Amino acid sequence: MVLTVDVGNTRIKAAVFEGSTVLENFVFEKNELEKKIKIILKKIQNCSDLVVASVGNVEKQAFLAFENQLKIHFLTHDDAFPFINKYATPKTLGIDRMVLAAGATLQYPKQNRLVIDAGTCITYDFIDENDHYLGGAISPGLRLRYEALHNFTARLPLLTLEKPKSYIGDSTAEAIHSGVVNGFVYEIDGFIDEYRENFLNFIIILTGGDADFLAKRLKNTIFANSNFLLESLNQTFQYKINND
Amino acid sequence: MVLTVDVGNTRIKAAVFEGSTVLENFVFEKNELEKKIKIILKKIQNCSDLVVASVGNVEKQAFLAFENQLKIHFLTHDDAFPFINKYATPKTLGIDRMVLAAGATLQYPKQNRLVIDAGTCITYDFIDENDHYLGGAISPGLRLRYEALHNFTARLPLLTLEKPKSYIGDSTAEAIHSGVVNGFVYEIDGFIDEYRENFLNFIIILTGGDADFLAKRLKNTIFANSNFLLESLNQTFQYKINND
Repeated sequence: MVLTVDVGNTRIKAAVFEGSTVLENFVFEKNELEKKIKIILKKIQNCSDLVVASVGNVEKQAFLAFENQLKIHFLTHDDAFPFINKYATPKTLGIDRMVLAAGATLQYPKQNRLVIDAGTCITYDFIDENDHYLGGAISPGLRLRYEALHNFTARLPLLTLEKPKSYIGDSTAEAIHSGVVNGFVYEIDGFIDEYRENFLNFIIILTGGDADFLAKRLKNTIFANSNFLLESLNQTFQYKINND
Repeated sequence: MVLTVDVGNTRIKAAVFEGSTVLENFVFEKNELEKKIKIILKKIQNCSDLVVASVGNVEKQAFLAFENQLKIHFLTHDDAFPFINKYATPKTLGIDRMVLAAGATLQYPKQNRLVIDAGTCITYDFIDENDHYLGGAISPGLRLRYEALHNFTARLPLLTLEKPKSYIGDSTAEAIHSGVVNGFVYEIDGFIDEYRENFLNFIIILTGGDADFLAKRLKNTIFANSNFLLESLNQTFQYKINND
């Protein structure tokens, strides 16, 4: 069994896989890393490999305590990935985006794919039908927008995510919910429409912590899979051991 | 002559008006307030009134040094405004948004008006043809989005506004420019489209520091007037002295 760990900008997500089946999911804070992994490994005793993708200032050293229990794979740009990276600055492409692109390439072969990951940031990644990773876009996620409004202004409150009642917010709180949530939805639909104008057929994968909340609000019909990054981590690992 | 002063979240903008004509514009930092106003009043000696709208933590006290030279009008929610405020929380409606709504009401009578102010935040404000202010939306402005990406993530650089080369950014910098700028443009077009579906005829006023940059990128044709807030301040003042 494989324990996959996704160290994001805000939290850590983990899942145990047997083949391509998820057995269990976990979410925890960065300062709980060692404690939580110890608990997971105690609970699920047959893990042979630990696969990590980290964009969040947690380095390989943090996992060395588990070296005697299972094999540690800390993914880097030097690993084998199933796409051709056409990024002009491949070394600065976040390892999370590389894993998402790998998952999309392996899970949806021979087609154009747009992966939208709505977490701390929202990232858009496009891999064409020739398995060329072309790039995408990065902008602030929902929570970041709420925090930016509060942190950079003198008078706006810090709110937490809420469904706006209308596009015309009739109070400061409703105006913020409308601006953040509707603005975010318009942005995603705008990007999708732009891709639609240029590519006739492509599959869209929507993932990340806000995927379910967003999927029902988009003009475009998309199915959300909030576990896609961890699934992709597992697939990237399988690809790596078959191609190393 | 009237000296209008707009204290925003980031900077201070000022303009001198003779009737409805702008004689000169000024932009400066908050810590230069007293020095700069002294210079303006020395240069333009016939100012009789100073009209202030402040959302940026600068209170009336900051202007009292000029009390002997001209009459000070520090706009508050208690002043006369030319629209009926339907906001559920009228006391929390930013005075800048009230001034924009007043300017739109006075300058474009008897029609639906959408005012979009792209500054530190982007605000959307809607006043219908019956002069009812209905509310709107608030979300982070362009610079805030760049800053949020850098401040809330471990590895993204702080960039300054740049025109993206494509919607598919092929480097980290290009991905950020695409996400921030294209995302922002899709958001604005999305809001405009939403209003268009619900109101047959309305005028759109685009203002704020990023208005010119944005106007040529929107799908919807809009004319930018980056001076609209100061013009509105002058008009709100004229309305106030005629209605007090």
